[in-house]
Amino acid sequence: MPLLVVGSIAFDSVQTPFAVREDVLGGAAVYFSYAASFYTSVRLVGVVGEDWPEAYTDMLQRRGIDTSGLHVVPGGKTFRWRGKYLPNMNDRETLEVHLNVFGEFSPTLPESYRRCPYVFLANGSPVLQLKVLDQMTDPQLAVADTMDLWIREEHDALLELLRRLDGLVLNDAEAKLLTNEENLVESGYKVLELGPQFVVIKKGEHGAMFFSEEETYVLPAFPTRRVVDPTGAGDTFAGGMMGAIAEEQAFDPATLKRALAHGILMASFTVEDFSLDRLREIEREQLDERMQRFQKMLAF
Amino acid sequence: MPLLVVGSIAFDSVQTPFAVREDVLGGAAVYFSYAASFYTSVRLVGVVGEDWPEAYTDMLQRRGIDTSGLHVVPGGKTFRWRGKYLPNMNDRETLEVHLNVFGEFSPTLPESYRRCPYVFLANGSPVLQLKVLDQMTDPQLAVADTMDLWIREEHDALLELLRRLDGLVLNDAEAKLLTNEENLVESGYKVLELGPQFVVIKKGEHGAMFFSEEETYVLPAFPTRRVVDPTGAGDTFAGGMMGAIAEEQAFDPATLKRALAHGILMASFTVEDFSLDRLREIEREQLDERMQRFQKMLAF
Repeated sequence: MPLLVVGSIAFDSVQTPFAVREDVLGGAAVYFSYAASFYTSVRLVGVVGEDWPEAYTDMLQRRGIDTSGLHVVPGGKTFRWRGKYLPNMNDRETLEVHLNVFGEFSPTLPESYRRCPYVFLANGSPVLQLKVLDQMTDPQLAVADTMDLWIREEHDALLELLRRLDGLVLNDAEAKLLTNEENLVESGYKVLELGPQFVVIKKGEHGAMFFSEEETYVLPAFPTRRVVDPTGAGDTFAGGMMGAIAEEQAFDPATLKRALAHGILMASFTVEDFSLDRLREIEREQLDERMQRFQKMLAF
Repeated sequence: MPLLVVGSIAFDSVQTPFAVREDVLGGAAVYFSYAASFYTSVRLVGVVGEDWPEAYTDMLQRRGIDTSGLHVVPGGKTFRWRGKYLPNMNDRETLEVHLNVFGEFSPTLPESYRRCPYVFLANGSPVLQLKVLDQMTDPQLAVADTMDLWIREEHDALLELLRRLDGLVLNDAEAKLLTNEENLVESGYKVLELGPQFVVIKKGEHGAMFFSEEETYVLPAFPTRRVVDPTGAGDTFAGGMMGAIAEEQAFDPATLKRALAHGILMASFTVEDFSLDRLREIEREQLDERMQRFQKMLAF
């Protein structure tokens, strides 16, 4: 079943303790789409400037990603982010943000997108996320990501969004900030009380936790020696998770847990190189092989 | 099979964001022994002062813990530690340490202890740990814990110890410090190169990682809403792990992984109350029940 994603498309400049890359392809919607495309057809909504190379559109289309929702602003410049990872490769510092055309992003969904059964609202202002949701016709599963900025500065809109979502994906620091609760398990339950049917808390190198009325669990990350660039890990996690849900056309507890595992593995590949470089090297076969190793790792 | 543990016995004064306890029973060897006693008979080696209540010795003995290696120093005072947990309940600050009789601890093992097949050298100076190991007659499995202090100040003795150990248990920060490596997976491999057959890296609320020539894996912690006091979690983790090994009388890869899971669950109970209070409430049945939930949680 098709999966709709709305979010940022960016050129990232990334500095790690080991290497530097300038203006590589990034943005939450790009990472998400690419990861989800291993499982299902994806419909992408985003905005870029005139500096966007046509070759990237071609590359996404070859992955079965529908780009009719990709808006190119004449004379505009694409969103740019510059960041630096600390030696632990988990914490990062944002050095520069140029929203450019993303600052005025107010998407109108193509008619063909509005009945999409699965939708992911990648990190963005909750006002914008609500606006997208308003254009959807009865989605089966609406899930969103958020960040500290919106928790702090658009709190009311975020609370309204939470009442309308089926699922929320956020990281551990964001969950604690949103609920003012330091115990992550308690924090997850408190987010649930804000509305969504399920909550996924991403813990970076420590995996992810899942919360719903029925169950709480945690899966570790897949251990990898090769951590080159964590940028996009969270977005490809969400892409793998939502992609697996759309592929199975189900979101019962067992499917959701498998989907979470797919997200974790997708993230484990993403961090092994810059941008989409590692994901572009792999096929579904390698994902499945890593999934078998992951399942074996967790059995005793 | 009997399991020998050598290490500290203490009175802890613990401050958390929620409560304060003064002079509660603690110390690595006590936590370890109590946890291991769910699985096997334990032989305890440690030192206390005249202020040690006989009732504690009785309590340990009722758990099948052999206390003939418990040395009471006439006129001496038992080791005291005072610490304060930060709101995240993971990081802590040591406010006071009074080594007292533990400062002169130089154990001579009772003759009956020397052929014990399984030995755990709880956190202590590697010089002292080596001295204990020297008194053992061909143990089948010798495992130790260590800490930042020894990594910094008794580095050479620690390296000698590592060459003689079968297994090392340490936490994530200690592994990074010992190997000067920020990637935890790489760090685990580097500790392996220092000698032990296997290395377990404790990650607190994020579970534990295992490294050997044959395999690397990570298991998450068991998620608990009730984190009252993390003191002793690492020691009861080791006690559960070593206890399960001694019970199964094996340390093949499959047994080691099950043992790691036992350690994780033991720690998950420990943090639910101060001192040994939570462990004293449970029976093997509750452990087994939580183990079933843990296995189910990790299956998908």
